[in-house]
Order: sequence, then C-alpha cells, then structure tokens
Amino acid sequence: MTISQRRDRLRQRLATAEIDALLVSDLVNVRYLSGFTGSNAALLILADDETPVLATDGRYRTQAAVQATGAEIVIERACGPHLVSRAADAGIRRVGFESHVVTVDAFAALTRAAGERCELVRAGGTVEGLREVKDAGEVALLRLACEAADAALKDLVDRGGLRPGRTEKDVRRELEALMLDHGADGPSFETIVATGANSAIPHHRPTDAVLAAGDFVKIDFGALVCGYHSDMTRTFVLSPIAQWQQDVYDLVAAAQRAGREALAPGVLLSDVDAASRAVIGDAGFADNFGHGLGHGVGLQIHEAPGINATAAGTLLAGSAVTVEPGVYLPDRGGVRIEDTLVVGSDADDTPDLLTRFPKELAIL
Amino acid sequence: MTISQRRDRLRQRLATAEIDALLVSDLVNVRYLSGFTGSNAALLILADDETPVLATDGRYRTQAAVQATGAEIVIERACGPHLVSRAADAGIRRVGFESHVVTVDAFAALTRAAGERCELVRAGGTVEGLREVKDAGEVALLRLACEAADAALKDLVDRGGLRPGRTEKDVRRELEALMLDHGADGPSFETIVATGANSAIPHHRPTDAVLAAGDFVKIDFGALVCGYHSDMTRTFVLSPIAQWQQDVYDLVAAAQRAGREALAPGVLLSDVDAASRAVIGDAGFADNFGHGLGHGVGLQIHEAPGINATAAGTLLAGSAVTVEPGVYLPDRGGVRIEDTLVVGSDADDTPDLLTRFPKELAIL
Repeated sequence: MTISQRRDRLRQRLATAEIDALLVSDLVNVRYLSGFTGSNAALLILADDETPVLATDGRYRTQAAVQATGAEIVIERACGPHLVSRAADAGIRRVGFESHVVTVDAFAALTRAAGERCELVRAGGTVEGLREVKDAGEVALLRLACEAADAALKDLVDRGGLRPGRTEKDVRRELEALMLDHGADGPSFETIVATGANSAIPHHRPTDAVLAAGDFVKIDFGALVCGYHSDMTRTFVLSPIAQWQQDVYDLVAAAQRAGREALAPGVLLSDVDAASRAVIGDAGFADNFGHGLGHGVGLQIHEAPGINATAAGTLLAGSAVTVEPGVYLPDRGGVRIEDTLVVGSDADDTPDLLTRFPKELAIL
Repeated sequence: MTISQRRDRLRQRLATAEIDALLVSDLVNVRYLSGFTGSNAALLILADDETPVLATDGRYRTQAAVQATGAEIVIERACGPHLVSRAADAGIRRVGFESHVVTVDAFAALTRAAGERCELVRAGGTVEGLREVKDAGEVALLRLACEAADAALKDLVDRGGLRPGRTEKDVRRELEALMLDHGADGPSFETIVATGANSAIPHHRPTDAVLAAGDFVKIDFGALVCGYHSDMTRTFVLSPIAQWQQDVYDLVAAAQRAGREALAPGVLLSDVDAASRAVIGDAGFADNFGHGLGHGVGLQIHEAPGINATAAGTLLAGSAVTVEPGVYLPDRGGVRIEDTLVVGSDADDTPDLLTRFPKELAIL
C-alpha cells in the first residue's frame, strides 16, 4: 500500500464520520500519512481533496520537499493553528483534531485560530485505528527489525557475551552494537539487561551490576529499521541452574505459548490476555505477573492494540503485536519471554512469528 | 540541591499562585521532582505537605520504592485521575494541572475524577520554570555529558574516523560507540552526520552517503549521562578546502562567538539571538540561517529557554543553553557550530563553557 492509499483509507473514514478535514498533529501519524520525519509538523487531510497540506518550519524546507512528495508544503512554525486557519479560510466547517495528542494549551490555540468559522471535532485515535493493521511494506520492515534483533542476540550468545564477570551495561552495549552490524538503525527502545535479583524488576535499566553464576539474565530489546520497532525478550540462566529457576521458566514458557496460540482475528483482546494469564494464575503466581500480556508494535514501540485484562475490542487480522508474559519473584529473580507476531487473516491461520530466536531455556 | 529541596521551591510557587496541589503528569517533571524514571506515573505535590504522592502501575512497584524514596507510592494504572480523586477526597479545592502536557482526552478524564469536588487550574510550565535554572548537581551531570561527547569526537578525529570513503552511518556508529567508552549512557538524541551537500540540511539523518574529498562534514550530537543531555555541533572539511568553505566557516564562527558573548543574566532572549544573527545578516546570509540560535538543555534535549527571534523573556543566571548558529547553502553545503554553556551569575560573569572541543576549522 502506498502512502497515498493510506490517505485514501483515512479520507473514507472521515467521510463516514462527517468530518470535512483532519488535522494530524501526532508526528508519527504525520510520518505514516506523508513520509515526513521532521520534529515539528502538522498535516491537514481533506475528505474531498487528494492533496494534503504539510506545515513545518524553516529547518525542514529541504527535507519536507524530498520526503513528502505528494503533499503541498507550507513553511510556518505554528503548524496546527496555521492549518486550522487555512481550513476555515477554505470554507471547511468540521475539522477533526487528535484529542488524544493535542494538549489543553495547544487546543486553546487551535480554538483561537478556528474562531467562529469552523468547528473543531474530537477525532482522537482515528489514524492509530488505521495503523493497527499493517500493510505488506510495514510487515516487511517489522520482519527486518526482528531479524536484526534475533541475529544480534545469537551473535552475543555465540561469542560468549553472556558470562559471569561482565556488567549489565557491557551486555547492553555489545548487543546494541551487534544490532547495528545486522542492519538496524538503532535500538528500538532502551535495552533492558537485568541479572540476578534485578531480573525481578520488569523494567530495569542496565547498571554496573555484574553477571554471576546462577543468575537469571533477562534481556528485553529490539531493533529499529526505517522507523519500525521490533520487541523481544529472552531470559537465560548462567550455570548452575536451580530447580526453582527451571520451574519458573517452564511456567512462563507455557504461558507465552498459550498467549501465542490465542492470537486470532476476532478474539477479544482481554481473552488473549486471559489465556496466558490463566496458566500463571493456575500455578499460584497471579500476583507475580503485574503487567499486560502485550501490545501493538510498528512505527511506535507501544501502539494499538493493548492486550491486557481491561482492553476493549478484538484482535484484527494483520495486527503486529507482542506476547510477553512474565513471572517476577522479588529479590530472587524473574523471567519474561516475548515475541513479536503478526495476526493471521482468519481464525485458522497461525500468526506469523517474526521473532525466530529459540525459546528453549539456554543454560550458559 | 536535593530532590526534596526542589519540591520545596515548587511548593512555595504553588502557595504564591494559590494552588493547593499540583498534579505533575509530565514524566520528565516527575523524575525531576521524585527521582522516579518509569514510563507511566503522575505525582501529586501538595502546597502544605512535604510528602508527595507518586502513582504508577504494577510494573514499577519495586523500582518506585527504590527511586522515589521521599514519596508515598500508590499502584494504580490511571495515575492522573486517581490522584485528582484522592486530592478531592482530602478536601483540596484548587488542583493545578500541566495544561501544556495533558491532552484534551486526558483532561476529560481528570474532569470526571474531579467532579464538583475540586477545581482544575491551568498550571502549564510551572515545573519547567524551576528546571530552567540548574542546580549544582545538574551542572555536574551536564558537564560529564559534555565531556563524554568532547572525548568521543576527539577520539574519532584522532583515529582518522573522518576520511573519504566512509559513510555517514559509519561515522555515526563509531561516534556513538566512543561516547559509551567515555561514560555516556547513550546518545542524547539521534546523531546527525551530514557530508557534502547533505550538510546544507540542518537536521539530516545519516545515510549511506560517502564522505568525499572537499566535503563539509557536519556532526551534531550529544551524550546522555544520568538523564542529562549534552548537545554540540562541529563542522569539518575534508581536504582540499575551497575558499567559499573557509568564508562560510569563518562567518559562522564569528556569529557563534557573538552569541556566546551575549549570554548574560537579564538579557532578552531575542537579543541574544539577534546578536549572533546580525553577524550572519550583515554578511548577506540572513536567509541561510533558518532556525533559532539555541535552546535550554538538561533532562530534555530541548527545554526552556528557547533562544530565538520571537522568544519572550530574559536569560536567567544558571540556565544551561546551546548557542548554534548555522549557514546553509542548498545543494552546496552548510556549517553549524554549537556549544553547551551555563549562564553566569551576573552580567560580568562569563558563561561556563561546557563544550571544550576546539572551534578552529579542522581540515582533515
């Protein structure tokens, strides 16, 4: 699907919602709908005109012309108010805005620009709704991002990068460099390396803590490729392994499998979470799994859909999501196992597993 | 200054503004005022109670207890509404909120939580106002971040890292690895390496473009140390140099010096911009300098104050800012020179130059 086809899909949704134009303020959404990647921009998509208007400031004059080839470009620092004013001048009556992104102060500025001339209509999440289903080009980039992460972790393990005496920071650094070797533009978020008792902290930042024999080493990381984020977690044990570690690992692996097997279009998001959580709950560790099962990934590391106990809605065919249950035992250690997958096109279709790194427990 | 002293300063400001409590939603502000670095949190600071309340979700139970030692911690995913409701229950009448951060949708949720029980008062930028002046601990971290960046660039140049045949991506990668060698936690933003005509793009992402003899090579980057961001730009020439390159470089260097010399407490921000911009304008290149002169740096790579032609207000003693004029000649090349400095305590005090890398043109 081309970027202009994405806009066509959006314009159909706007027409259905009786919105004459959408002011896109979220920069990721601007990128999705125009190709432009600068740090100050807004995009006006008109329901009945194929050519969108991209506003950005003078720093991006050249870049905007190169990236946003299908758009009319205006150079104007106050992007949002300018585009609203322009829409009003053109006689547009109902302008949608991204109420989940626009701040209270920014909305006041849009309101001043609109005056009595046009109505600002809440349209939060409209573009995110489109982005939830990935097109073929997006899946290809996600696959590349997952491959880069897989290959980097394999290299790290093969060269003995996970061994007693190294620090969490050492491991993070080597892993991030290896991702670049394998074609990543960078890490897709701050790499988590957590050893020993630190592995019980779900989101731990690498420290100077030293890997030691008998530790769990939990690594949650991903690669960024052309704006697309991969996300994976693997947990290793540095020999010798204790029985409780094997038990916790097996439990999380079973829960993760159950979560993956529950992924199908039309399934309630909360049911996917429940399918995995039940495995952990039945073993008596419900209180040790304090986060949701997964989330969408794409141009953002966290995007729609959230997969958790309170999520509303169902899984869509073609969504890219993570499945990442964990069990965390405070002051002892924890395990998380996470893959990125693309949901199949019908209920019988198994999801496309983008993260290919093995999930059998490796004792190093 | 300790974190609790920062809160004391804020509480004084709240009392002056007749705000009974401030709901802090911005995660950087939460970190500044509590030490907590998780990705979902809000903080309630009460004007007449020393103990703040930090809300976060179950993923961060352990981390919050370790980091936010002076705060009461509540585990609750809907952090903001929960804290507003709690403030209302406690009989608090006027609750400030960060209107520059809270979205229109999030504000609707806060409004529902407040009901008729308390009033939500716009207090956007209150914490940023405090953060504009750095305390001694913050300056120490900024200095470390600037030193890491300086040392990495020196290493890169010394080992011949800037030479014809390498790509922009190669250079970026080596420079980022060198920053880690010198103690950085990571790059402070996406490193810009722009060679040849690409150097005319103020914010260029590194590509596979190959460095060639006669190119300008512009490198804009920084190091992150304990949450603090450094920011610097240097532009090199790969031999042989052309006269126009020497001329543009000398012009930008003169403008950068003028900008640094204008930094003093009490000076209008727009006058600092003008002092540097005039040098470029007088040489006939006004249209080739299309961005502001600089910006504050600290826990964010861009923070208050902005230094540009339309900035309101004056420079404060103890602010950390960049000075980064540039001249960009489309399709030929551009030069930017940027330092990070801390404004002195009185008009006669020269600013503390944190970026120590030489600014004489290096022909490599």
